[in-house]
Amino acid sequence: MSEYKSNKSFVLRAVEDVVYEERPVPELGPDEVLVEVKKTGICGSDVHYLVHGRIGDFIVDAPMVLGHESSGVIYKVGSKVKNLAPGTRVALEPGASCRTCDACKSGHYELCPEMVFAATPPYDGTLGRYYKLPADLAYALPDNLDLEDGAMMEPLSVGVHSVANVGGFKANQIIAVFGAGPVGLLCMAVAKALGAKRVIAIDIVQSRLDFAKSYAATDVYLPDRPKEGESQIEYSKRTAAEMASKLNFPERGLGAIDLVIDASGAATCIQTGVYIVKHGGTFVQVGMGNAEVTIPVTIILVKEINFKGSFRYGPGDYPLSIGLVAAGKIDLKPLVTHRFAFDDAPTAFDTTRKGKSEDGKAVIKAIISGPE
Amino acid sequence: MSEYKSNKSFVLRAVEDVVYEERPVPELGPDEVLVEVKKTGICGSDVHYLVHGRIGDFIVDAPMVLGHESSGVIYKVGSKVKNLAPGTRVALEPGASCRTCDACKSGHYELCPEMVFAATPPYDGTLGRYYKLPADLAYALPDNLDLEDGAMMEPLSVGVHSVANVGGFKANQIIAVFGAGPVGLLCMAVAKALGAKRVIAIDIVQSRLDFAKSYAATDVYLPDRPKEGESQIEYSKRTAAEMASKLNFPERGLGAIDLVIDASGAATCIQTGVYIVKHGGTFVQVGMGNAEVTIPVTIILVKEINFKGSFRYGPGDYPLSIGLVAAGKIDLKPLVTHRFAFDDAPTAFDTTRKGKSEDGKAVIKAIISGPE
Amino acid sequence: MSEYKSNKSFVLRAVEDVVYEERPVPELGPDEVLVEVKKTGICGSDVHYLVHGRIGDFIVDAPMVLGHESSGVIYKVGSKVKNLAPGTRVALEPGASCRTCDACKSGHYELCPEMVFAATPPYDGTLGRYYKLPADLAYALPDNLDLEDGAMMEPLSVGVHSVANVGGFKANQIIAVFGAGPVGLLCMAVAKALGAKRVIAIDIVQSRLDFAKSYAATDVYLPDRPKEGESQIEYSKRTAAEMASKLNFPERGLGAIDLVIDASGAATCIQTGVYIVKHGGTFVQVGMGNAEVTIPVTIILVKEINFKGSFRYGPGDYPLSIGLVAAGKIDLKPLVTHRFAFDDAPTAFDTTRKGKSEDGKAVIKAIISGPE
Amino acid sequence: MSEYKSNKSFVLRAVEDVVYEERPVPELGPDEVLVEVKKTGICGSDVHYLVHGRIGDFIVDAPMVLGHESSGVIYKVGSKVKNLAPGTRVALEPGASCRTCDACKSGHYELCPEMVFAATPPYDGTLGRYYKLPADLAYALPDNLDLEDGAMMEPLSVGVHSVANVGGFKANQIIAVFGAGPVGLLCMAVAKALGAKRVIAIDIVQSRLDFAKSYAATDVYLPDRPKEGESQIEYSKRTAAEMASKLNFPERGLGAIDLVIDASGAATCIQTGVYIVKHGGTFVQVGMGNAEVTIPVTIILVKEINFKGSFRYGPGDYPLSIGLVAAGKIDLKPLVTHRFAFDDAPTAFDTTRKGKSEDGKAVIKAIISGPE
Repeated sequence: MSEYKSNKSFVLRAVEDVVYEERPVPELGPDEVLVEVKKTGICGSDVHYLVHGRIGDFIVDAPMVLGHESSGVIYKVGSKVKNLAPGTRVALEPGASCRTCDACKSGHYELCPEMVFAATPPYDGTLGRYYKLPADLAYALPDNLDLEDGAMMEPLSVGVHSVANVGGFKANQIIAVFGAGPVGLLCMAVAKALGAKRVIAIDIVQSRLDFAKSYAATDVYLPDRPKEGESQIEYSKRTAAEMASKLNFPERGLGAIDLVIDASGAATCIQTGVYIVKHGGTFVQVGMGNAEVTIPVTIILVKEINFKGSFRYGPGDYPLSIGLVAAGKIDLKPLVTHRFAFDDAPTAFDTTRKGKSEDGKAVIKAIISGPE
Repeated sequence: MSEYKSNKSFVLRAVEDVVYEERPVPELGPDEVLVEVKKTGICGSDVHYLVHGRIGDFIVDAPMVLGHESSGVIYKVGSKVKNLAPGTRVALEPGASCRTCDACKSGHYELCPEMVFAATPPYDGTLGRYYKLPADLAYALPDNLDLEDGAMMEPLSVGVHSVANVGGFKANQIIAVFGAGPVGLLCMAVAKALGAKRVIAIDIVQSRLDFAKSYAATDVYLPDRPKEGESQIEYSKRTAAEMASKLNFPERGLGAIDLVIDASGAATCIQTGVYIVKHGGTFVQVGMGNAEVTIPVTIILVKEINFKGSFRYGPGDYPLSIGLVAAGKIDLKPLVTHRFAFDDAPTAFDTTRKGKSEDGKAVIKAIISGPE
Repeated sequence: MSEYKSNKSFVLRAVEDVVYEERPVPELGPDEVLVEVKKTGICGSDVHYLVHGRIGDFIVDAPMVLGHESSGVIYKVGSKVKNLAPGTRVALEPGASCRTCDACKSGHYELCPEMVFAATPPYDGTLGRYYKLPADLAYALPDNLDLEDGAMMEPLSVGVHSVANVGGFKANQIIAVFGAGPVGLLCMAVAKALGAKRVIAIDIVQSRLDFAKSYAATDVYLPDRPKEGESQIEYSKRTAAEMASKLNFPERGLGAIDLVIDASGAATCIQTGVYIVKHGGTFVQVGMGNAEVTIPVTIILVKEINFKGSFRYGPGDYPLSIGLVAAGKIDLKPLVTHRFAFDDAPTAFDTTRKGKSEDGKAVIKAIISGPE
Repeated sequence: MSEYKSNKSFVLRAVEDVVYEERPVPELGPDEVLVEVKKTGICGSDVHYLVHGRIGDFIVDAPMVLGHESSGVIYKVGSKVKNLAPGTRVALEPGASCRTCDACKSGHYELCPEMVFAATPPYDGTLGRYYKLPADLAYALPDNLDLEDGAMMEPLSVGVHSVANVGGFKANQIIAVFGAGPVGLLCMAVAKALGAKRVIAIDIVQSRLDFAKSYAATDVYLPDRPKEGESQIEYSKRTAAEMASKLNFPERGLGAIDLVIDASGAATCIQTGVYIVKHGGTFVQVGMGNAEVTIPVTIILVKEINFKGSFRYGPGDYPLSIGLVAAGKIDLKPLVTHRFAFDDAPTAFDTTRKGKSEDGKAVIKAIISGPE
């Protein structure tokens, strides 16, 4: 390790325009570490930037390195870094907050307005040889976790934040998760790890439900299709009633659904979720999809539902993610479906987007290795 | 008090069909008290039953005594009642819960599925000479409160539940309240009493805003009208931006809006509320109106908003209401606009519904005295 | 079941004076159930009443049936009871609260001043053929739980209340439990079931630690004895430092002790617990022992410790206890050491008190079957 | 402001050995501000270091500038500072935390192990011409607050942290505060500002109680002296009973004492506080005094008391302090008793320590102006 190798990076220049570039190796501040990136998962948001060049108000108007679900090995540490040393395998938390705003100081750094987040314009991502970050955001991996596990800590932390932190889920409770894609599956895994009594997965693709059942769900539900002339709200209300009947859960009290997670972003899922959650229960929106959704607010009112948003992850989420996997309570291996060399990153992206567009909407999680 | 007088009651028989009836005097259980009702406020829901015969799934299909915002004087107490005696002036909490379900035992009796609530079918209300209720739901009034204050404890408790309990509002925070009718005004009064830094009232009627400003608001806002071709969501988003600019509040951090209360039930108010509340802030829906509303759920997600429903009132709300008025922190007198004798109840209802239907939508709170 | 059998009961008449009496079969109110008691565990408090005739201000000055850790079979239900029927196997929650006081209504019925608690003077306990209680306090046992499990729900709920409810323990946290008697062991079992990262048991008897290790602890610690001339506080502080060193835990942050449970009641355990709990951590006192203890309050202050008391159990504790056992997360079988017929109750008490007084202080849990 | 003046500072070299020194003007980092210190209150801890050279494990073994309760005017800002400009009047929060540890990230920076706190060895305090601190710890003063108010924000924030944050005090609750010195009085002022129903002050000096009554207390209590042969615990228990009787408050429920603050550090106050706080209530230890205190832990257990430590102040405490004073809910003026020029700092310290040692233990708050 006497000398830096070139910092080869996978760069999105514009819509559908990616290229490998040799970027300069970042210079370290005293509290930072330089990580040699080893494994990076591809996330839907990476694909979205590739295909659309933007997500909401975040617009790619300058070349940007992609990737933010990464692990690696510490290459170099800043002058004041004590707890990490070169050679340590780490999971990377890819968002550095300002640490001085109200949100940061009150325990909600995920809401920091000055967040520097990997592969969110204008900030570069992790798909390069090196990535620099504050030392406290590089988490040493326990011996029984490998680097792919490390890369998966990012999406797992999204699940941990939704279920454990925002959702406040507790042992012996019942959860329903809409959407059996990667985030939905990880939410189910977290709920199971926390001691869920029942984990109900809902999706419109049977093969995804089959996987969910084999992975972390105790019950699965494939909703009926809308009837002709049925409004969306009527359909959602009917679906909720049918679910309750077929899966045998009451609308309130013990045995009712304590927490609903929507990891789909689909309007009808959100509506159905509001109908099935128990009185006084919690609904957490973690899936981005329809920007605006018609919601039965009177139901929220009379049932005193807590309808909450969950954004990324905050204090304690990475440690809890790592802890649950290290303790054997969550197995991330079954979720990784494809593996690619760094030079095959374009193929990895192709594979991911094709999976999403197919009828079956397979659950795909591609992991790209770092440059040789 | 040697003998009962007849229990004359004001009964809704069907839509637009009210009558005075002589009802039997209720028999007391050992833990109950019989109250001679002295003052009863008319609520929008009473009028709604009169005009429509139903509210949602609650249908008046048998004659029902109206009224649920009441105070009175203890007439008789059950054999086991210790803390109350005949002659004591009390505010009545008009909902008796089962006390054995999960909701009741966990501190949320407002969600009890077996709730017996006055003037909610099939249960009779308080507009009679006598009303019987469990002793712990009759709250002795401090000397400096009169019986009209006592009757107003019911709507005030709706405000207390929304702002203090569900909303978790704290001193030095900023609140925005949509809708300056009785409940909205009481929410403002509660926020002021709890030490609000700013209380922002929003309404579409200037005279209501004028009253709000004179009563408990520090700022008022009359939204611009929608522009031609502007969608509801666009309109709400623009209104939010204009409010922030004209009233000079940021979108997050100190000085931003900590809590939004919607006491209007109007779709555009709910939408605007979601746009203006701060990151990590709380939105409470207390006003019933549009059953379904299009909501910018992605905003809820990225701002991690707590969107909560507030239904009636729960443990501690009545005592807090009484305490705030007794301490002089809330003045209920300005809210009572009309007073009627018991025999003029029909006129009281007419006055209330006319006020609601007029262009100006005046704030009307009519109080009916008990039978002579 | 056409006729009642006699209600044979095991009665404490005075210190060391027990007798079997034929008591009348209780009459049922409309919301009550009559249970044929099948299994009853003996608790330290039962023995204490037998030996001392009192616990604190609770004095046995009239004959009292002993026993409060019971399960049984529903024999008869009151006229309004819907959810239970004769023949159902149930665990009994032995404290009926008033349901109308502030504590009851706000979700803390364990603090009700009017609590009617089995085998706490002047209320009779469960060691008879029949026991009557409100229907909502009789919890149906899932098929995979037997009646001994049902009797053990009472002490398990003490552990659930301490660890899950008062202690707020969460997955991946670290707990230390002082005292490896029945309650301490159950606290460990609860922590393990909730996903503890480490469960540290501390006791002064090696055999009890051995059992704890085989049961639910990941680490055990046998403190050194006090040195000559060492004050109690010095001893406790030294013990804390030695524990931290030998068991390798830091004083704060990740890896530090999140929750300390004292199930011993011993002064030095409480002191040591305050020294080892992390900054911002929680200490829960559940073991009764020394009435007054010298505590390093400055440590509580600078570490901002939450030092809390845990008394009996409250809303949701029985259901969580049953749920954790039904899910296979807690095994109660290893804790039951002795079994006795009803007519051998005196021997059961003798066995329990002898166990407590022996040097080894064996963990003893005797279960007495109901009358034939 | 074209040139720095010398940075004259008031330095503690050893026990009872203070001197004025010309120190170098601190160099600013990009996120820091340099403040020209204008007003500094003297705190008991400053005096303690002067007299004893240490507080607990914090030992003055090198010269240290004293003072930490300060306000001033921004003199210069670092290159990245946006929200502050030279000339702005500010209150200084005198503790800079690491911002990367678990405590800092989870919203409890007051527990940061790397805290750099003014006038806590080995860190210099604020009693100089200039003081440098992170920009987010310099709070702009509203126009209606003067620089003395600004200096008082430090002790006020100790009160805010104890009462509002750790104590969770709410409107209409009842508080009892032991110790009517500066911190106790500020706790009372905070409780009053938050809408306390009753504020009960307890002290052993009548003149201090008289002041408390004129300032923020609704009730005062001068305990009887211990009787001959009475143990400390017996005395405390008797005092609690007498207080309850004379001040007419029950032991639980509405009207009982929701929160006890001990700002005295005296053993008997802590004991009495545990006896008087209601079931399920909160006790907060904020006064440092007796390091170890005999506490009735069985009372903590059966009443399920939350006994908590409050250390300095955390996120949001300074803003709340400023907000309450700016809103006119707290008046700090009556608390400032003495004012001194910078060159008279030794006299200011003398005055403060004499006040503490006198029989009457007057409430003294001396404020020292910055160098001319």
